Amino acid sequence: MKKINVMKEVLSSNELIALQNREYFKKNNTLVLNIMSSPGSGKTSLILETIKRLPDNKILVIEGDVAGDIDAKKIEKSGTDVFQINTYDSCHLNASMINTIVNKIKVKYDLVLIENVGNLICPVEYNLGENYKIVILSIPEGEDKPVKYPKIFEKADLLLINKIDLIDYSDFDFNKLNETLKKLNKGLKTLRLSCKKSAGFEELIKWIKEKAGDLSRINAV
Amino acid sequence: MKKINVMKEVLSSNELIALQNREYFKKNNTLVLNIMSSPGSGKTSLILETIKRLPDNKILVIEGDVAGDIDAKKIEKSGTDVFQINTYDSCHLNASMINTIVNKIKVKYDLVLIENVGNLICPVEYNLGENYKIVILSIPEGEDKPVKYPKIFEKADLLLINKIDLIDYSDFDFNKLNETLKKLNKGLKTLRLSCKKSAGFEELIKWIKEKAGDLSRINAV
Repeated sequence: MKKINVMKEVLSSNELIALQNREYFKKNNTLVLNIMSSPGSGKTSLILETIKRLPDNKILVIEGDVAGDIDAKKIEKSGTDVFQINTYDSCHLNASMINTIVNKIKVKYDLVLIENVGNLICPVEYNLGENYKIVILSIPEGEDKPVKYPKIFEKADLLLINKIDLIDYSDFDFNKLNETLKKLNKGLKTLRLSCKKSAGFEELIKWIKEKAGDLSRINAV
Repeated sequence: MKKINVMKEVLSSNELIALQNREYFKKNNTLVLNIMSSPGSGKTSLILETIKRLPDNKILVIEGDVAGDIDAKKIEKSGTDVFQINTYDSCHLNASMINTIVNKIKVKYDLVLIENVGNLICPVEYNLGENYKIVILSIPEGEDKPVKYPKIFEKADLLLINKIDLIDYSDFDFNKLNETLKKLNKGLKTLRLSCKKSAGFEELIKWIKEKAGDLSRINAV
């Protein structure tokens, strides 16, 4: 008797490759975080601030950009392993791009931080094989972004409000934000921080440790 | 003898519809500006500040958003005609969406301001039938955006640096920005302004009047 895995057949090719990536990372006890936001919200700064707080862990950063390697160079300077993906005309990373990296990995990582292309729309449509999706919203962007770009906030596992140091120069309304989030993603964990001031990271590191702990990862921290 | 317009046949369907839109606007002496930026850079605020400085002109605003109508409501409150386009999963406006509006227009407009979906990547790939492309970059996003998202800055006719009121709380480096722009789009006209402080608009209004004048439009201003 031949058995056909119908489930697999109906999955899109992106989803299939994402599953392969996920299986690889699971086998290696690697926690994988997909970090998404608008351009300029602070994804690279967040990654730099995070890795310096996890000095005992083997970390890989994957940088997704339409063009250039400015951010990858910043990561490299910090002494952390980094791969650069240039997407050219594509406005998001996909599982296949990550799979290319997976095939090049030679060591066991505790944590992989993927910086997606700066875009609040398409990146959320493509699973990469990550364990969790993190969305950054920065204070100057305004609290209305989840109304206009709902899906990425609906699917997020963690929302980071960055550039909290600019709150006094902004009309950002946390009550309105919370009202919107209640409808889109009730109970979404939300943390406030400032990459510029290197402030508010205790809770994020605790969250990463918890998530890694759930999966028996990052024991060294 | 039958003549085949090869040129038209090789144009993409988006380009063909953009040409139709352009012909319609040209016939009606309407100046059309396609305003693009990251989410939260200040497109709607820019439009509100612009229209209040052109009280004697008949203006239409077209709002492009993935979801919601927050911005269209703000424009409506100002007494200006507005159409809302929701793109759902699409991360940009296209000529066909604008054509749907063109078919509904009943009066002659001096100026049409199109607010594209907040995204620095795909919107520039789709001509809408506009006369000029305006890109907004806000101070908190950082001066490195043209390195990472080059095409939209290459194709821009005007670059507006918004949120200049936040310059003292930022590391934004104008020299680096100018170096990048010199390579991408030499001579690109760049204006600095603050929508929040309602400052720096004289030059923008002058630019709009000039562009309208070139095309014998907005004589009433």
